[in-house]
Amino acid sequence: MVKKFLDDSLTLHTDLYQINMIETYWEDGIHNRRAVFEVYFRKLPFGNGFAVFAGLEKVIDYLKNLRFTEADINYLRNELRFQEDFLDYLQNLRFTGSVRSMAEGEIVFANEPLIRIEATLAEAQLVETAILNIVNYQTLIATKAARIKHIIGDETAMEFGTRRAQEMDAAIWGTRAAYIGGFSSTSNVRAGKLFGIPVSGTHAHSLIQAYIDEYTAFHKYARRHKDCVFLVDTYDTLKSGVPNAIRVAKELGDSINFVGIRLDSGDLAYLSKEARKMLDDAGFTNAKIVASNDLDEYTIMNLKSQGAKIDVWGIGTKLITGYDEPALGAVYKIVSIEDNNGKMIDTIKISGNPEKVSTPGLKRVYRIINLANQKSEGDYIALDDERPNTEASLNMFHPVHTYIKKDVTNFEAKDLHHNIFINGELVYQVPDLAEIQKYCLQNMNYLWDEYKRSLNPEEYPVDLSPKCWENKLNNIEAVNQRVGEYLETY
Amino acid sequence: MVKKFLDDSLTLHTDLYQINMIETYWEDGIHNRRAVFEVYFRKLPFGNGFAVFAGLEKVIDYLKNLRFTEADINYLRNELRFQEDFLDYLQNLRFTGSVRSMAEGEIVFANEPLIRIEATLAEAQLVETAILNIVNYQTLIATKAARIKHIIGDETAMEFGTRRAQEMDAAIWGTRAAYIGGFSSTSNVRAGKLFGIPVSGTHAHSLIQAYIDEYTAFHKYARRHKDCVFLVDTYDTLKSGVPNAIRVAKELGDSINFVGIRLDSGDLAYLSKEARKMLDDAGFTNAKIVASNDLDEYTIMNLKSQGAKIDVWGIGTKLITGYDEPALGAVYKIVSIEDNNGKMIDTIKISGNPEKVSTPGLKRVYRIINLANQKSEGDYIALDDERPNTEASLNMFHPVHTYIKKDVTNFEAKDLHHNIFINGELVYQVPDLAEIQKYCLQNMNYLWDEYKRSLNPEEYPVDLSPKCWENKLNNIEAVNQRVGEYLETY
Repeated sequence: MVKKFLDDSLTLHTDLYQINMIETYWEDGIHNRRAVFEVYFRKLPFGNGFAVFAGLEKVIDYLKNLRFTEADINYLRNELRFQEDFLDYLQNLRFTGSVRSMAEGEIVFANEPLIRIEATLAEAQLVETAILNIVNYQTLIATKAARIKHIIGDETAMEFGTRRAQEMDAAIWGTRAAYIGGFSSTSNVRAGKLFGIPVSGTHAHSLIQAYIDEYTAFHKYARRHKDCVFLVDTYDTLKSGVPNAIRVAKELGDSINFVGIRLDSGDLAYLSKEARKMLDDAGFTNAKIVASNDLDEYTIMNLKSQGAKIDVWGIGTKLITGYDEPALGAVYKIVSIEDNNGKMIDTIKISGNPEKVSTPGLKRVYRIINLANQKSEGDYIALDDERPNTEASLNMFHPVHTYIKKDVTNFEAKDLHHNIFINGELVYQVPDLAEIQKYCLQNMNYLWDEYKRSLNPEEYPVDLSPKCWENKLNNIEAVNQRVGEYLETY
Repeated sequence: MVKKFLDDSLTLHTDLYQINMIETYWEDGIHNRRAVFEVYFRKLPFGNGFAVFAGLEKVIDYLKNLRFTEADINYLRNELRFQEDFLDYLQNLRFTGSVRSMAEGEIVFANEPLIRIEATLAEAQLVETAILNIVNYQTLIATKAARIKHIIGDETAMEFGTRRAQEMDAAIWGTRAAYIGGFSSTSNVRAGKLFGIPVSGTHAHSLIQAYIDEYTAFHKYARRHKDCVFLVDTYDTLKSGVPNAIRVAKELGDSINFVGIRLDSGDLAYLSKEARKMLDDAGFTNAKIVASNDLDEYTIMNLKSQGAKIDVWGIGTKLITGYDEPALGAVYKIVSIEDNNGKMIDTIKISGNPEKVSTPGLKRVYRIINLANQKSEGDYIALDDERPNTEASLNMFHPVHTYIKKDVTNFEAKDLHHNIFINGELVYQVPDLAEIQKYCLQNMNYLWDEYKRSLNPEEYPVDLSPKCWENKLNNIEAVNQRVGEYLETY
């Protein structure tokens, strides 16, 4: 059985190597040096042209409650054999740092800092794993939801995926992310309770099977549930399910609200068109057709192109797992560290893969809004002390293919980061979930349609300011020099 | 922010339609009828020849604690507008049923009942969603782990995936499942604390970056951590990382235990071979090479075929998300229900897709062990009252392609189900996690190698007993007749 500890705090929800490193820093007396880490991903998921940031609320909760409990310390002492002096230090560790972050629902892109953590080296190191675990999943699903909702358009999108989600946290935080990305409701009652998401659901095949007779089952269901959606594919959709639904709806007339029917198997294009005719012929022209069964943006686009008559889309597995790309690869990289003299110096990670080279220094991300048309010219990553709004013209260029460039005037540079914690104190009020959804939808308007299409979208510009770019080149050069000197010496 | 309720019970972790159906049954007075549901999946994941069952421990915990809390009831009352009389009923609902289940670590196949729930119709209906959510994910990951471990062979497999897992529950329950499937350790400290899984980890690139100088970083790390694995790819693996590791190991000599190095990027085949030579030339022939970076069974098989010199494999994303097939499609189907006269009658779900037709009736699953060679002849699904061990010969035939058949004698029919709950009382002691891992490994021995290979394995026979098969045909016929009569009537 699960070992019965006093608690299940999340502070140990980290990789062991983080604690090993903290111990090294602590032993060496540098654990309290200031360090700055950034969270970013290198590639947009699903071939999409943008992503939707999510996860901040849980990150805040995690940081606020960061402390090693007695059970945590006992485990580190008794099972992992950490020593008493170091455990004394851990016992008093709290998150005392400053955090700047994108708001949930923000439209975000590859290679821009989503969250910036400035804290003691030890604190900043400890929280990497949990923050990535949270942000990677929630951002992935908010993005998938926005992508699916883009194809669904004005029709209703419902999240149905709990039974196929990757364990329980994914079910509830995933459906919250889906709501941020534009979904209308969830089937998960606990998610409704915890987050205030509208909850929807009708009945399953087992209701029909419990009564054996489908007509009886619909009747019994309608007796209590005035808003009726009947699931019609338990035995035979067109020969049994739809006729029984119509029969019950006719018999009960105004005593119920016959909302419609749900199709959950078979050829949804054909069945929906036939069912639509049957419903219309029976006079139920307002009855909705709800469809589900392994749907995603591709099947939905296909069904629409075949003229399927579907009004409401229930999406499960393919959404809640991000099925075709089930992991976002956000990373957490140190960009600046205090040196022996108390001065912050930039730091870089080099790699054989050019896209894996990190961008050193404290940075801010600005969305450059063209004031003439209120469309974005791209995102502009500048060093912390730059103030693009005070400049008349911005030189925006691709950080790898530098010949792709433009000068932008008549713009507003919108700082995408918000202060979340300042020196350990929470200074940010997470908006209502409905507000977050609205924010996401509104911010889509800054994007040209070419960035939003689901197949082969244009690449949205995410540029480095000239200063930021030069700083990166200088850091690369410095590393090359150090490695070169090293090779000469040994 | 998350709405602050009194608690976060898991009883509402269900689809709304379950509660709607329970209300229908309750209103109609049939909620206390006995009903039997089975959990099974229709298709093995990853093209694998078998799956490894996991999730039972959490299912037990969930069922044991099933009760609507005050906060749950308030939510159902105030937000979802359920009525007081029905809420009174829910408030006293507990799990009073009987459960039979495969043990965790059991080798399982498509279309066999993994868990059988016999309870009141209401209770059995309520628990569907959570049970599937748990079993689908944990079984998926235990299977993926066994599949990867099969390719790794005798070398060590470590689970590294927390940061890419689909939220926090997946990270910890996923690594537990990976351990069941044959992995040796996890990087997640909380999983170590909760489940007693061995925890492993060294240091990250950020340690090097924090010290800027790699040599200094290794030195500092080794000062406290006697068992040293140095990560060598921060700046340049062969020019800087490996030479620095060797230099520090030589300088510190016996004062540390130089376990080896870790490669986390670049061409792992080339780098591992070159690093091996450098380590050997320096006299460190026992130093291990640990490799990580988006590994799965395919990349590992490839690296091995290229003669890569890797001793320890760290697997993250591709394992913890079941990347190439991130959802198992286990379903929960009613197979029997008490009728008006208190008699249990079988029930079936028909579908246009033949593989989606359920198999009615209470059933047991036997593994038919050939006593001559201790290998399995296949699994044999029989009705509850059949006793194959009392028969001299079993007629085993494919349930769809019935010409594929054999008569088996000299066998032992091993009942794969264990009693877990009897009338609401827990009667099962979950084994130690290490025992579960051992059980899984041992039971693999019953399988011929042809079922275990990762590419195009033979299909393992999962057959219905003649009685079970006839019962299914009779049920299909009865439904067809009812639909036919219905069409004549209306």
